[in-house]
Amino acid sequence: MWERDFQVPHSAACSIEFLAAKIQGSIEGSCAGLVLTGAAPLQDAQQGEVSLVDNEKYLAKLQASPAAAFIVPRNFPAVESKVLIRVDNPHAAFIQAIHSFRPQRTSLAGGIHPQAYVDATAKIGENGWIGPGATIGPDVQIGARTRIHPGVHIHAGTQIGSDCEILSGVVLYENTILEDRVLIHAGSVLGAYGFGYKLVQGRHCRTAQLGWVHVESDVEIGAGVTIDRGTYGATRIGEGTKIDNQVQIAHNVRIGKHNLICAQVGIAGSCSTGNYVVLAGQVGMKDHIHLADGVVVGAQAGLMSDAAPGQVLLGSPAINQKEQMQIFALQMRLPEMRKQLKQLQATLDQLQASQRDSQAMSSGDAA
Amino acid sequence: MWERDFQVPHSAACSIEFLAAKIQGSIEGSCAGLVLTGAAPLQDAQQGEVSLVDNEKYLAKLQASPAAAFIVPRNFPAVESKVLIRVDNPHAAFIQAIHSFRPQRTSLAGGIHPQAYVDATAKIGENGWIGPGATIGPDVQIGARTRIHPGVHIHAGTQIGSDCEILSGVVLYENTILEDRVLIHAGSVLGAYGFGYKLVQGRHCRTAQLGWVHVESDVEIGAGVTIDRGTYGATRIGEGTKIDNQVQIAHNVRIGKHNLICAQVGIAGSCSTGNYVVLAGQVGMKDHIHLADGVVVGAQAGLMSDAAPGQVLLGSPAINQKEQMQIFALQMRLPEMRKQLKQLQATLDQLQASQRDSQAMSSGDAA
Amino acid sequence: MWERDFQVPHSAACSIEFLAAKIQGSIEGSCAGLVLTGAAPLQDAQQGEVSLVDNEKYLAKLQASPAAAFIVPRNFPAVESKVLIRVDNPHAAFIQAIHSFRPQRTSLAGGIHPQAYVDATAKIGENGWIGPGATIGPDVQIGARTRIHPGVHIHAGTQIGSDCEILSGVVLYENTILEDRVLIHAGSVLGAYGFGYKLVQGRHCRTAQLGWVHVESDVEIGAGVTIDRGTYGATRIGEGTKIDNQVQIAHNVRIGKHNLICAQVGIAGSCSTGNYVVLAGQVGMKDHIHLADGVVVGAQAGLMSDAAPGQVLLGSPAINQKEQMQIFALQMRLPEMRKQLKQLQATLDQLQASQRDSQAMSSGDAA
Repeated sequence: MWERDFQVPHSAACSIEFLAAKIQGSIEGSCAGLVLTGAAPLQDAQQGEVSLVDNEKYLAKLQASPAAAFIVPRNFPAVESKVLIRVDNPHAAFIQAIHSFRPQRTSLAGGIHPQAYVDATAKIGENGWIGPGATIGPDVQIGARTRIHPGVHIHAGTQIGSDCEILSGVVLYENTILEDRVLIHAGSVLGAYGFGYKLVQGRHCRTAQLGWVHVESDVEIGAGVTIDRGTYGATRIGEGTKIDNQVQIAHNVRIGKHNLICAQVGIAGSCSTGNYVVLAGQVGMKDHIHLADGVVVGAQAGLMSDAAPGQVLLGSPAINQKEQMQIFALQMRLPEMRKQLKQLQATLDQLQASQRDSQAMSSGDAA
Repeated sequence: MWERDFQVPHSAACSIEFLAAKIQGSIEGSCAGLVLTGAAPLQDAQQGEVSLVDNEKYLAKLQASPAAAFIVPRNFPAVESKVLIRVDNPHAAFIQAIHSFRPQRTSLAGGIHPQAYVDATAKIGENGWIGPGATIGPDVQIGARTRIHPGVHIHAGTQIGSDCEILSGVVLYENTILEDRVLIHAGSVLGAYGFGYKLVQGRHCRTAQLGWVHVESDVEIGAGVTIDRGTYGATRIGEGTKIDNQVQIAHNVRIGKHNLICAQVGIAGSCSTGNYVVLAGQVGMKDHIHLADGVVVGAQAGLMSDAAPGQVLLGSPAINQKEQMQIFALQMRLPEMRKQLKQLQATLDQLQASQRDSQAMSSGDAA
Repeated sequence: MWERDFQVPHSAACSIEFLAAKIQGSIEGSCAGLVLTGAAPLQDAQQGEVSLVDNEKYLAKLQASPAAAFIVPRNFPAVESKVLIRVDNPHAAFIQAIHSFRPQRTSLAGGIHPQAYVDATAKIGENGWIGPGATIGPDVQIGARTRIHPGVHIHAGTQIGSDCEILSGVVLYENTILEDRVLIHAGSVLGAYGFGYKLVQGRHCRTAQLGWVHVESDVEIGAGVTIDRGTYGATRIGEGTKIDNQVQIAHNVRIGKHNLICAQVGIAGSCSTGNYVVLAGQVGMKDHIHLADGVVVGAQAGLMSDAAPGQVLLGSPAINQKEQMQIFALQMRLPEMRKQLKQLQATLDQLQASQRDSQAMSSGDAA
């Protein structure tokens, strides 16, 4: 039986001098011949490991850490009795260190696994990989160096460009188009029917769902994302756009280029966005609305209408962030406003009473 | 190598006269012998293609389109220098046109694929299809003409009716029941355990999860939907109900007939709905509440209590839409109300002061 | 052809005396020799079946039910013309009854199914099960008695402890760690890349995604959950925590021990929680915030900042529940407050006018 340590293994130890040379860093502190056994972030780093501290504000955490050495920026303050490796770009250096201790696993396998199913009419590009349990339907075309992981299901007529990576469990319905360098994480579904029904004699009848999904180059799609096909043509995701996990994009939607769409966003049918739009987590968009270039929407917002270029929106229903923040603040003051209203009423009642008295007196005088 | 055009191919060109005859349309404009090469929606249509314009309000877009011809309603205005095909039902005609140029891919394969796994005790109906990579457990029963796509996993004792379609990646836990003509899109999961725990000595212990999911006839379920089994019996989805992508339905829920449940809705345990209920996107329902027949709930609403027949609800917590709209409007006026309060206070202070003065004067007079 | 009854079958009938003896109950009512044919919850129970009534408040439903007998608490009132079986623990007894009539299906199969793919370098523990269509990558280690259902995809270097159960369609990316007795429901994805990008010359460039997911013992994860890998190290789920369906947990998150995280919650990057935290459905958490031990968050809340031990939070943006409830109540009174403001204004205007008049009179007097 193997060792049950529940640790991701590090492949090889090295001297601190070896690592410092590799990442072009300068060592500070007494540590000649120190052997480093791994690299880990500050909160996880153990004795013998090198860690990363990219900002002075983590100084206390550095001092409390058992790590053997710390990769820091050139201008980081000196820390007594700790070993520092000063570098120009701490993150880049730390990434190199991780790669050095724990080489990334990349399946080197190529070709079509014998436990994959590839239809006889499908065309697979050079140096591609089709993993075990993947199924590739009729007339599918897959470009060079594209990697189809185990258990991906690609339906008839789908076209995939070069250098794409499709993770396990992804389903691409018929006629899906992915251009080049598209990355799709596990369990996402592209091309299911749009949610379109007509009520006929008391029953919801599905309307035509004849379109497909078209994903342009350099798009990355997270895990568990669903993008429905267009009604007659394409639902389209623009070049360079990145989509986080569990996002729902309905039929006929057109996402622009270089958008960032965070987790659990829901975009209803026929919406469109310009370029460089940012939607934070759990945002919802009503159908048929358009967000112009550069619109930014805060988390959990509910968009009910079009937005102009560069607008920053917040709340449900969403309005301009600045006004929404003011309204959120005033909602917190509702108890105070209520109290104030009561006091005003009381004061006014008193005032009216005293006025009535003085008028009565005046009348009395007059009498 | 194949042509990399990232287009969904059209199979065959035809003359405009041929198409017009097929869709029973009358041609208007000079176009004798015009050859049409495809059909596409207005925003996508290219030279040589026929498009659809179902409403006069898109007249400007029609005029700007390079499409060769446009399917329009009989009463559409004439458009100079454009070719129209007038028909009774533009959508039905356009669907026919699409089918003509781009026949829908329907896998004609039948039978059990050799790369599927079907347990020896499972019974598969006539003219069914089990795709490669699908797995069918013990005692499963599948009706006639039901299509199980590649990579579907059906656990022991599940019963599926006739003419169902189960898309790739769907998982049906043990004892799931699907009646006839049920459609389930890719990646949905029916029958996982309900989220029920009891705290015992500081640890959450799972309660009994002995039930199953029962889906009545003509239900359609989107992609990435999760429906948990009942505790002791069925979680049930009523006949003709349609469920969009990424909906979560918890244990013991009873959904009525002909509901429409939009994307990303979450329904907590033991809720129930009547017939013809509509839940818009991202709605959440607290556990154990009932929505009567015909209730309609707006997007992102949070339901905390029962709703009467036909109620229209909005907001979180949800109340009647009409009142909620008024409250939303008043929230927008909170800055104004705050200002008004201050002004009232100032006016009142002034009034009090002047009254004090006049009383002081009166007292002075009296003195 | 088989019988199409769309019922989950009951395996065997038994006499009421037999069942009562089994569940240590005492029978009440005239029923000698009564044969029971199944067990079902109150709303589903048919003639001949035994049901459960755990609370007097369901007395009317009991009286209306066609069930043959009812398992009730010892102190339940007598019900004329109905047969009761009084027991100490009605739920435990009903679970026994269900098991008696409908034995739970547990696949007895062991070993590696010939239609699974297991890399030659993977190590599988004793008495484990790898179902058909599952794929196990290089250097994977799986502990004793762990059950990998059909169509699970486990990537290189993943380590799984003993007595785990991984349902169909789950994807574990490279280097995932699951300790002992972890349960993951169908379609969940652990280890996809975090959503981290840097804008370089107008394009979003992915930052390093070198970490993994570490799930401690006795964690249970629902269906369709996504948990992203850490940037450099682990995204970690603490011992005994339970996660419901469609929850999204981003990179570098640290969930404490014995949390309950309900359906459709979204937790942004680098958040952390203490022990015994409860998040209700559809809650969203902003990145980099910490919830201390015992924090409880209401459904659909949006957390924007840290929370102290035991805080109960509600709303979006979330504040203390007590204050939020007050503010929700005052929002409902906004129309009334608005009206009151107008009345105050009118009264004040009137008062000012009358004061001006009396001053004018006084001046008149003085003149």
